[in-house]
Amino acid sequence: MRVVSLPEILAALDEEAALAAVASGFRRFSAGQVQVAAVGHLAFADAPGDCHIKSAHLVGDDVFVVKLATSFYRNPERGLSSSNGFMAVISAATGEILALLHDQGQLTDRRTAMAGAIAARAIARPDSATLGVVGAGIQARLQARLIARILGLSSILIWARTSDRAAALAADLGGEAVGLPQLCARADLIVTTTPSTAPLLTAEMVRPGHRIVAVGADSPGKQELETAILGRARVVVDSRAQCLDHGEAGWAVRAGLVDPASLIELGALLESPIAFDADEIVVADLTGVAVQDAEIAKVVWRGLQRAPSPRD
Amino acid sequence: MRVVSLPEILAALDEEAALAAVASGFRRFSAGQVQVAAVGHLAFADAPGDCHIKSAHLVGDDVFVVKLATSFYRNPERGLSSSNGFMAVISAATGEILALLHDQGQLTDRRTAMAGAIAARAIARPDSATLGVVGAGIQARLQARLIARILGLSSILIWARTSDRAAALAADLGGEAVGLPQLCARADLIVTTTPSTAPLLTAEMVRPGHRIVAVGADSPGKQELETAILGRARVVVDSRAQCLDHGEAGWAVRAGLVDPASLIELGALLESPIAFDADEIVVADLTGVAVQDAEIAKVVWRGLQRAPSPRD
Repeated sequence: MRVVSLPEILAALDEEAALAAVASGFRRFSAGQVQVAAVGHLAFADAPGDCHIKSAHLVGDDVFVVKLATSFYRNPERGLSSSNGFMAVISAATGEILALLHDQGQLTDRRTAMAGAIAARAIARPDSATLGVVGAGIQARLQARLIARILGLSSILIWARTSDRAAALAADLGGEAVGLPQLCARADLIVTTTPSTAPLLTAEMVRPGHRIVAVGADSPGKQELETAILGRARVVVDSRAQCLDHGEAGWAVRAGLVDPASLIELGALLESPIAFDADEIVVADLTGVAVQDAEIAKVVWRGLQRAPSPRD
Repeated sequence: MRVVSLPEILAALDEEAALAAVASGFRRFSAGQVQVAAVGHLAFADAPGDCHIKSAHLVGDDVFVVKLATSFYRNPERGLSSSNGFMAVISAATGEILALLHDQGQLTDRRTAMAGAIAARAIARPDSATLGVVGAGIQARLQARLIARILGLSSILIWARTSDRAAALAADLGGEAVGLPQLCARADLIVTTTPSTAPLLTAEMVRPGHRIVAVGADSPGKQELETAILGRARVVVDSRAQCLDHGEAGWAVRAGLVDPASLIELGALLESPIAFDADEIVVADLTGVAVQDAEIAKVVWRGLQRAPSPRD
């Protein structure tokens, strides 16, 4: 078992290759070519924090990947990162642990941002100019950078519950901290990145043509969008099963506002792109699928195999 | 993150403390004091092999444990152990990975054997003299040694599909390799340890007063006991939910031979022991519960904290 430190991981990670691999992974997932284990989830009310365990094997691959990622929301108050964890790359022929990528949650953060960017590219209006970012944490920063770069958006608006953090992130990104209604009024594309358990965006904030990528609702109880928004929108989901269980789509389906048969899986959308009407509202509900972990870990693992091991 | 090698793990493992901890864990599990995540399972038909991921947090503990264990059944043909994996000890306050116990499956093997011994002690007739072991793999060896020691059984009978392996294990254990009907006729207590997907023990082999500990059926499709055996038995399960899903109990319940309400959870049995009638058949169906992993990993972790780290 090779234990790989974060600097080694980041040096071995080819971002463009990973973006392509994650997109390919979504297509293969929606085509039924990925074995995904039940997601393990533990919740720690006191801390508060979450632990997610996700595992996937792409049919034919010689390795599979098990990912553990924790998010403890008060860690920053102690000067610690909220994210921790690792990805294990395991032989699908012998079960041996080939590599333990001790990414401390950073590969999960990056593959989540990549999924957001891939979804944003698939649903954005071609004339999009302004990105609105809801939240000011790690995902807000990564999604803002990646989406703005990939879609060539030059204007970034930030809203967060804590206005100091919004202002700090806006300064870092060359964006502007604004109120949430103003953000919605001005943005073409909105990405929501908070661990909120109550809707932040209301239906009255959303206008025709809005495209929304929601990445916060990754476990039961979390919700960032009022269900009425999804009732008026085309809804794209990363995983039909997961989003019905604990995504934004689940809330809207349980409220009787969305027909589950109408949900479009992201991998299917990537395989057969849809030219949405300019005034359609489109929501991409991303809960995080193990195939993303498998794809980004494989990109790192291939990168490490090309580079000599520091122990060799 | 401290990566702990197998020799360090075994040096830090106090077997008596672990036996007590695993038994305590079962009691707390059945009392609803353990948060257990959904079990992740991946199956590799070609290899063939399995990967199980189990996670648990005992209420109030400052750590939780995520365990990954693989079993690849043809590894011994390549001179490799069939078992691999690790247990991660993680802070329940910050999500940091405190220790990665690279046990290569050995802690899983041992906690499984401990559960077998704990169940055997809870269901065995006081006059038991002869142990029958079905299978000749790692579990057969560990269960035989531990059960024989704890219950003071001096006579061990072994049956396995491959008679050479049965003979080799019998020689190691000072036991006797016999046919399966003969094993059943002579043993008081039988432990079944194979990855069989079809019943090995038939109802006609089982007689009144037999006590059977079945540890092989740990994932969907596996079965070692004909369902009619359970139809005639008191059935103890390590986890009601898991055993209904993929244990021996599940087969018997689906066949309409066992009322799920009659299942006795092991932790409840340990809390309130039952004096079974001498001629009752009792089956303990063990699928493996994450609390066992949490308890054995915590015993190792406490042992490591008493010993200085080799890196200090």
